[in-house]
Amino acid sequence: MYLSKLFIPITKDLPAEAKIKSHQLMLRTGMIKQSSAGIYSWLPLGFKVMKKIEQIVREEQNFIGAQEMLMPTIQSSEIWKESGRYNDYGEEMLRIKDRQGREMLYGPTNEELITDVFRSSLKSYKSLPQLLYHIQWKFRDEIRPRFGVMRCKEFYMKDAYSFDLSDEEAKKSYNKMFYSYLKTFNRMGLKAIPMSADTGPIGGDLSHEFIILADTGESQIYADKNIFEINPDLYKLNDQSLQKMREDFSKVYAATDEKYKEEEFNKMVKKNNQMITKGIEVGHIFYFSDKYSKPMNCTIDDKNGKKTFVKMGSYGIGVSRLVGAIIEAKYINEVMKWPKSISPFDVVIIPSISKNNKENLDKAEKIYDELKKQNIDVLLDDVDENMSNKFKKHDLIGVPYQIIIGSKSKGNNFEFKELNSQSEILSLEKIKLKIKK
Amino acid sequence: MYLSKLFIPITKDLPAEAKIKSHQLMLRTGMIKQSSAGIYSWLPLGFKVMKKIEQIVREEQNFIGAQEMLMPTIQSSEIWKESGRYNDYGEEMLRIKDRQGREMLYGPTNEELITDVFRSSLKSYKSLPQLLYHIQWKFRDEIRPRFGVMRCKEFYMKDAYSFDLSDEEAKKSYNKMFYSYLKTFNRMGLKAIPMSADTGPIGGDLSHEFIILADTGESQIYADKNIFEINPDLYKLNDQSLQKMREDFSKVYAATDEKYKEEEFNKMVKKNNQMITKGIEVGHIFYFSDKYSKPMNCTIDDKNGKKTFVKMGSYGIGVSRLVGAIIEAKYINEVMKWPKSISPFDVVIIPSISKNNKENLDKAEKIYDELKKQNIDVLLDDVDENMSNKFKKHDLIGVPYQIIIGSKSKGNNFEFKELNSQSEILSLEKIKLKIKK
Repeated sequence: MYLSKLFIPITKDLPAEAKIKSHQLMLRTGMIKQSSAGIYSWLPLGFKVMKKIEQIVREEQNFIGAQEMLMPTIQSSEIWKESGRYNDYGEEMLRIKDRQGREMLYGPTNEELITDVFRSSLKSYKSLPQLLYHIQWKFRDEIRPRFGVMRCKEFYMKDAYSFDLSDEEAKKSYNKMFYSYLKTFNRMGLKAIPMSADTGPIGGDLSHEFIILADTGESQIYADKNIFEINPDLYKLNDQSLQKMREDFSKVYAATDEKYKEEEFNKMVKKNNQMITKGIEVGHIFYFSDKYSKPMNCTIDDKNGKKTFVKMGSYGIGVSRLVGAIIEAKYINEVMKWPKSISPFDVVIIPSISKNNKENLDKAEKIYDELKKQNIDVLLDDVDENMSNKFKKHDLIGVPYQIIIGSKSKGNNFEFKELNSQSEILSLEKIKLKIKK
Repeated sequence: MYLSKLFIPITKDLPAEAKIKSHQLMLRTGMIKQSSAGIYSWLPLGFKVMKKIEQIVREEQNFIGAQEMLMPTIQSSEIWKESGRYNDYGEEMLRIKDRQGREMLYGPTNEELITDVFRSSLKSYKSLPQLLYHIQWKFRDEIRPRFGVMRCKEFYMKDAYSFDLSDEEAKKSYNKMFYSYLKTFNRMGLKAIPMSADTGPIGGDLSHEFIILADTGESQIYADKNIFEINPDLYKLNDQSLQKMREDFSKVYAATDEKYKEEEFNKMVKKNNQMITKGIEVGHIFYFSDKYSKPMNCTIDDKNGKKTFVKMGSYGIGVSRLVGAIIEAKYINEVMKWPKSISPFDVVIIPSISKNNKENLDKAEKIYDELKKQNIDVLLDDVDENMSNKFKKHDLIGVPYQIIIGSKSKGNNFEFKELNSQSEILSLEKIKLKIKK
């Protein structure tokens, strides 16, 4: 993509309404545009990042055997009355009357709807376990939406639901999701800590939040540094190994202020290993057994033909929220560097262009064609602007690799820079290898 | 995927509420489940087909240089008041009041919102032309939703918008979309006819519908058979070639009852070439110049610095609707055969299983593993059911290729069947080639 053709309304002003750095960056680089309070359009740059995050989430859900489906955004109030949450949910639920006066709502979450789908679909224990997920827009009518995509009204979320015959079996599904979440965040270059958590309005008795470290995070966290020594890739996708993984995590201290107790922290964690920092919640998983299946009469026939309420859990990842959260974690000292796996482009070519000399632009275009042939997603900055401005701009756009076509590039060797590192002079072949690595 | 694990609630009953065959088939094979009147959940089988359609649409939009973005589902009423459509739109618009009493709505289309995004983003003719698109859920509060996903309330749509400096330039964008649509439908194995059309509530003076042939279609169509001789693949993505393509189409008679005139049809088309049949609209494109940019004051500076209203068009494809439309076109004599490019699976393995003999199932599993390694998406019917029932079921699920592991399969040769054809005995290598072809 040539930058001059990209629909990317970059602005130099610091937007007044944006109080945190992810919101500022997303507006300045034209990733999003507010359409009304707490509701955003995703412009091409932001959209590309969000889609890459979505795809990683999808692949890791598929890997553990979860099946993708899609529930609608608009739900009937009936099922929420069955579960008892219609009145409980309060004003954050966007309530709607259709033209016939029926009470509808824009789904803030989908426990009721998935239970309704399930109860009319499967009847036998033989079909269990089942893991279903969808990635769909949700709506919460926040009274004071703020922080850009971090706390907005219309947001994009992956929510998964597990269905099992017994509490014991259900814990195995829970462990699979626990594992999937760690792998998902790892692939995005994030350090995510699972923390046992309260269950809130979803309900249930077992729950973990997944929190990534960011100085600007909303949650205070207290943890043993050793928690990062536990590598999810060393566990296998079988019940025993995943149970071991859960146990290994539970032995290492990690808590948010909600659950933090100073005495316990000091007792369990050596001073040297104590980490007190801030973090942002990016995922939350719940096990709530028959909290929804019972009031909604969602049963399964067991081996003896006896009807039993199916045991359920739910598992959320904030896909649109992650875009903001990752910026909070990775935008440091006025430089944003996207993790390679979710960067909007693989590499940007920055030629030094002057009115009388288009030689560098010609060179840049040749390299562009060459890289495109190799399926490398390249951005070419063909805008007529001085190099100092260009570099400032690309410090914000955040493509991790740059090929700079200026005085240092000679013949078939070009200046190559990884953001936050020194540049080096390399052949195009070596550059390709670096990008693809 | 093993069929016993797939979340696929197959029902043998013909659902009473379903009046047309696509709706019947989608319910019977568990592709969708109604959640409330005109609102559906997409279960894994239906979801996979819809995603494949979406991906073809996306690739062909990208091919002509359109950029993907994403606008929200909930819009403010303000911009609709600016364009003057807020009152015009009538009861099909789902109107919502948020907790602060603000008038919002669930977008039925996005001309206003994209104009709002554009006017605050780009200012110079240098940034033109621009083609932007998104694939997003829309809502129309149909008074009598029916025909399943063909006429429902919440539907998935690709809508694109073009921005140009002059009417002349804008026609070039229009031609690109025209070309892209023909290629898109071709890739789905559909014969689509572009018909000049009325513009309706979108407005403007140039418009085409794209209609696919289906005996059960809603529109009566009259066309010259020669229209299928025009092959979009023979044109090139440049202004001149695309203008030629438009002209070639305009020379061949094609009209819906709206525009049909008997005398003209008989004069222009020889008896032998007259085709009178039915069809379903799957795409619609509009050029409406400054219909929205003028009232919404969306201007661009031209070369002389003079402000001029940007010239716009809009271009829709009903992605969820296409799933139903394709079934209407391809489900014939109780057999559904998905076009290869959008089939939910590449191939299904159907072993004959009996309680005392699992040999065929073992064989099937080996073939399954072998095909999976080649990135072939396989369904294995491991359900314990007689073969006659299995075949009936797969006539509905519609995977175009079957490997049948029964008495005819011997050693390393297996019975291979393409739906609606005779089976043949082939080695696995030959089967792989057939599937990949």
